[in-house]
Amino acid sequence: MVATTTVDVLIVGAGPAGLALANWFRDSGIRVLLVDKKPGPTPRGQAEGLKSTTNEIFDSFGIGPQVVAESWRLEEIAIWGTREEGGSGIVREQVILDKVDELGTVRETMLQQSRVEHHMLQNLLSHSNISIRYSTCPVTVEIDTSCSHGADGYPVKVGLTHETQHDSTSNGSPTTNGVDEQGVADETIHAKYIVGCDGARSWLRKQVGVVLEGDLTDSVFGVIDFVPKTNFPDIRRVCYVRSATGTILAVPRSNKEVRFYIPVSSSGGGALPDPKDVTLDRILAAARAIVSPYTLEAGAVSWWSAYRVGQRVGSHFSRCHERAFLVGDAVHTHSPKAGQGMNTSIQDAYNLGWKLRLVLQQGRLVRSLGLGGDPAAAATPHEALLRTYEGERRPVAQDLIAFDRGYLKLFAAPSAEFDSEMLRGMKFTTGLSIRYPPSCAVQLPRGVQDLGPSLLKADLVPGKRLQDFQVVYQADSIAARIQKRLQATGAFRVIVFAGDIAEAGQFAAVQKLGEFLADRGSGLGQLTTPSEGEDSFAAWEEVPVEVLVVHCADRHKVELLAMHEVYRPWSSDQGYDYWRVFADAESVLDGHGRVYERLQLDRQKGCCAVVRPDGYVGAVVDVDNFSGLRGYFEGVGMLEVSGVPTARL
Amino acid sequence: MVATTTVDVLIVGAGPAGLALANWFRDSGIRVLLVDKKPGPTPRGQAEGLKSTTNEIFDSFGIGPQVVAESWRLEEIAIWGTREEGGSGIVREQVILDKVDELGTVRETMLQQSRVEHHMLQNLLSHSNISIRYSTCPVTVEIDTSCSHGADGYPVKVGLTHETQHDSTSNGSPTTNGVDEQGVADETIHAKYIVGCDGARSWLRKQVGVVLEGDLTDSVFGVIDFVPKTNFPDIRRVCYVRSATGTILAVPRSNKEVRFYIPVSSSGGGALPDPKDVTLDRILAAARAIVSPYTLEAGAVSWWSAYRVGQRVGSHFSRCHERAFLVGDAVHTHSPKAGQGMNTSIQDAYNLGWKLRLVLQQGRLVRSLGLGGDPAAAATPHEALLRTYEGERRPVAQDLIAFDRGYLKLFAAPSAEFDSEMLRGMKFTTGLSIRYPPSCAVQLPRGVQDLGPSLLKADLVPGKRLQDFQVVYQADSIAARIQKRLQATGAFRVIVFAGDIAEAGQFAAVQKLGEFLADRGSGLGQLTTPSEGEDSFAAWEEVPVEVLVVHCADRHKVELLAMHEVYRPWSSDQGYDYWRVFADAESVLDGHGRVYERLQLDRQKGCCAVVRPDGYVGAVVDVDNFSGLRGYFEGVGMLEVSGVPTARL
Repeated sequence: MVATTTVDVLIVGAGPAGLALANWFRDSGIRVLLVDKKPGPTPRGQAEGLKSTTNEIFDSFGIGPQVVAESWRLEEIAIWGTREEGGSGIVREQVILDKVDELGTVRETMLQQSRVEHHMLQNLLSHSNISIRYSTCPVTVEIDTSCSHGADGYPVKVGLTHETQHDSTSNGSPTTNGVDEQGVADETIHAKYIVGCDGARSWLRKQVGVVLEGDLTDSVFGVIDFVPKTNFPDIRRVCYVRSATGTILAVPRSNKEVRFYIPVSSSGGGALPDPKDVTLDRILAAARAIVSPYTLEAGAVSWWSAYRVGQRVGSHFSRCHERAFLVGDAVHTHSPKAGQGMNTSIQDAYNLGWKLRLVLQQGRLVRSLGLGGDPAAAATPHEALLRTYEGERRPVAQDLIAFDRGYLKLFAAPSAEFDSEMLRGMKFTTGLSIRYPPSCAVQLPRGVQDLGPSLLKADLVPGKRLQDFQVVYQADSIAARIQKRLQATGAFRVIVFAGDIAEAGQFAAVQKLGEFLADRGSGLGQLTTPSEGEDSFAAWEEVPVEVLVVHCADRHKVELLAMHEVYRPWSSDQGYDYWRVFADAESVLDGHGRVYERLQLDRQKGCCAVVRPDGYVGAVVDVDNFSGLRGYFEGVGMLEVSGVPTARL
Repeated sequence: MVATTTVDVLIVGAGPAGLALANWFRDSGIRVLLVDKKPGPTPRGQAEGLKSTTNEIFDSFGIGPQVVAESWRLEEIAIWGTREEGGSGIVREQVILDKVDELGTVRETMLQQSRVEHHMLQNLLSHSNISIRYSTCPVTVEIDTSCSHGADGYPVKVGLTHETQHDSTSNGSPTTNGVDEQGVADETIHAKYIVGCDGARSWLRKQVGVVLEGDLTDSVFGVIDFVPKTNFPDIRRVCYVRSATGTILAVPRSNKEVRFYIPVSSSGGGALPDPKDVTLDRILAAARAIVSPYTLEAGAVSWWSAYRVGQRVGSHFSRCHERAFLVGDAVHTHSPKAGQGMNTSIQDAYNLGWKLRLVLQQGRLVRSLGLGGDPAAAATPHEALLRTYEGERRPVAQDLIAFDRGYLKLFAAPSAEFDSEMLRGMKFTTGLSIRYPPSCAVQLPRGVQDLGPSLLKADLVPGKRLQDFQVVYQADSIAARIQKRLQATGAFRVIVFAGDIAEAGQFAAVQKLGEFLADRGSGLGQLTTPSEGEDSFAAWEEVPVEVLVVHCADRHKVELLAMHEVYRPWSSDQGYDYWRVFADAESVLDGHGRVYERLQLDRQKGCCAVVRPDGYVGAVVDVDNFSGLRGYFEGVGMLEVSGVPTARL
């Protein structure tokens, strides 16, 4: 007898990508099942290094403080090379700051994958709509592509195989090494969507016929996490140590440990060694040769490995009419040295999660065909939105591989411009240059086909991530960072950059915008305010579009309660909401965010940005461009195009 | 049959003071028993408001991040008054910043007592040397004052009474209201010291014959924690609302709540109401009258109370030859409105804890009479050190009462200088003005009887708290705050403000000081370095005096490994210790601490500070004043005066 289970989303693989994806479904009521063939959470090692964007994602999941508390900050990079005058040994060439000015915050921190997974996993455990099963993997999959998105069917049918469950009262750790895809299905899952977060050897990728395009590189690396006992003076800095026998990348981490990436050549020269043949002693010997004449001994070694790098991108990121998705290592592989693997996986998942959540929460999308004559929009809004996952993330992976090629080359053959190449690399890996192409979820101003160079330089642009910035609350002057404020609830935000509202004309314009935002007829009211008769604080927290204000007026000339009610809504149980209006002002202790300056905003006229649930800018319009604002939510399928609102479920 | 238990320290009362005291004994091996007559931890309310010093104490206990994460920051204070031109209603007079420039950090945060207790309690649970028993209180006490400190005896004998223990397998909450001191002893405790942290009605205070000196004030206050529903515009600021019928103090807190302190007059005028007769409705009515014409309704009320303030200080803080101590509310009471009660209690305990720990860890004190001709030092070093608890904390309590009198008066009859009085109050309550008098633990330069006005203005002065400041690690440039670095381990610190060690002469002087600090003969080596043959990292972490360096040289001209080994010791298991040398330098992202400027230190010559385990400065000497340095540790009883070192246990 084969058991049958019905879920909304089946996630294959509970690594960083799968856990990040599952985090999007907290408090959603959507039924999610994660399966992983491993017997339990990853115990150790592997990926490390969290970019600022990834840390912002953790903030949005509510686990930022825990992650930061365990992470190690990187601040300086030392570059060592051989002596110019010849002779043996290495010399310090320069020390550069690990800092990207445009970012305004910590660029990178170090935390091992198992702890990252731990915090994301803990964050799921109290949510009964999300289940995780280890020692479980899929063995068959069938997808009925005739079923339309938004309908009630479950077109994905998956056979699962399980390791026999352990007695839950025993407290020993599992003794198995998990299961594999050769097993016999003992359970059938009916799902609406299936997502493969199942790593470089992805099972789902093979089932849906996606191929990885690209090659293996011609280098083998050893990686080792250990407490170094050394008189090398820069051991607590990020170091690139380039000697005649190769280049070490050394990165400090917590618990007095350091991670080394060390190239390992074949013992006899000639062909590359097989990573399986590489031993810890051989890696350490290679490291010693590079840092000589400095001494190097290993104290405690907590993890080590050896690998050969592939640089490949999947031919597709979604298949079967957007019923099956591939995320992270399942569709791109590259060298780990730029610390991009775990980050890109989590960011892929972060891009996909809110789209699935929105489509599954039927009430928030209009079910009918929506987008008129545009052939790309002939599909339902659901399908168009889901298709943007591949449209947005595949180019990112392709850019990453191109970057990685250059980076590996730099490693192999040190160039004279090592430091400027490094800086370019740091900027790239922070993701500041990512801009998603126009789509239903990234809308350019009417009539604009693509952004010209002048707009591209600006910092509030559709398709780019909303840059994090500091503002202060109008009500109490407490400083806040905007990305921390934007929790991953699935809500869009309309951020009204209201300009100088101490000036009467601008204040009137912002009040008028408030009326439009609250208007449940031809405005956005049905998205920004609770249903008639519901005015609890909880109802206000559940609206699909949250309205926020950032003004640049003299804060003491602004009275919060004089502003339109949509900006400081009243709830019968908790009074006014004081936490939606911010000033671009000096804080008492934390300095001035200078948002209007940094984002190049017009202080007189302001503007209005639609920020997607994942923190990317969806549209930017003038504060009086009501049709532009409404157009965005029509385009994404949340309002009827006719201008006649559809009732929300 | 009466059970018998032997402990080192018996603490009566597991409130903020008792828990803070117990936190000092983590990882010490000293046996501590806390008893409290309550059936369990405080469920709610009461004290609130944490001053910067208290938050530094939590950092030193390792619970700073948890406390900060739950706390609410205060940034602005609004002052409201009646209309000058007469007429009804109130107007906003001014808004001032809740900020003390000298402090350089957040002055105050809000967190309710029960959560403060929770974090301190959690921090004890994994330490098997510390036990806590609720529903337990002392009923008898006898103290043998003939026993000398440092001997092996247990001169304190206490009879305890217990509520019958609940079955540990039942999971209901205790149904009793605790026990009282009228019970019959069913257990005898033999202890070396007893500490009364048992609140304003302290049982121990009565047993040891200490009286509270002072009076009840003539005002009755209601206090209420609630979600306000109001159109009063400054509800998220700290507010002093002064109307004809009284002054409300309103303080924002987390979970959208606000705390109000409201004066309640008798219903018929005339005599003061009995606090027992005051109802929630009456408090709310008084509040409404004050904020009128603004509306005020209460959403959820999480706690309320009414009380009449006493302003009293105990005649003694220790008795019975320093065998019995009184801490916190047990020896001083005052109005809660300056938020000083819980803070002062915790700070009292913080002052006492390390002294008891040092005395109980025999090996760290010389047992014989130590201080030659000084009559104050005729006692053993143990007794002299313990006596400084009263010498240091009683004046603080007296100053606090004096301050409170003025503060309450200000409340009752608003003065024209309300704002400047407020600022003065903020400075006082931060504790910046506290300076402990000279003693064995606070040593002035030889020949100086008291500090002149010029020295008093300086910021690195024996008897004052080491001001918190930011520096960067020499090894990796990561920014650190010094008070966070000074964990409450019981260790003293010698902080070498090394000056500009890029200059050869100064570098030589600091190296020479290093030799003295490492010298196990006539220097401080037996306090700063592990025993011969022990060179594990753990052994280095257990030395009773930790050596740190803060230099102001160009950081890139300093090589850490060129410095004397005592500044970056080697351990056989973990290599060098990279975390003892700091630079007063610009950090990558967090600005410049400007320590030498703020503390008015000589950049050429530097100086050397002894910092006590509680973060107060014990002595300040020149970097070549070896005898001054040694003199401090002789004075406090950790080295023999003769100059011949005593072997440590």
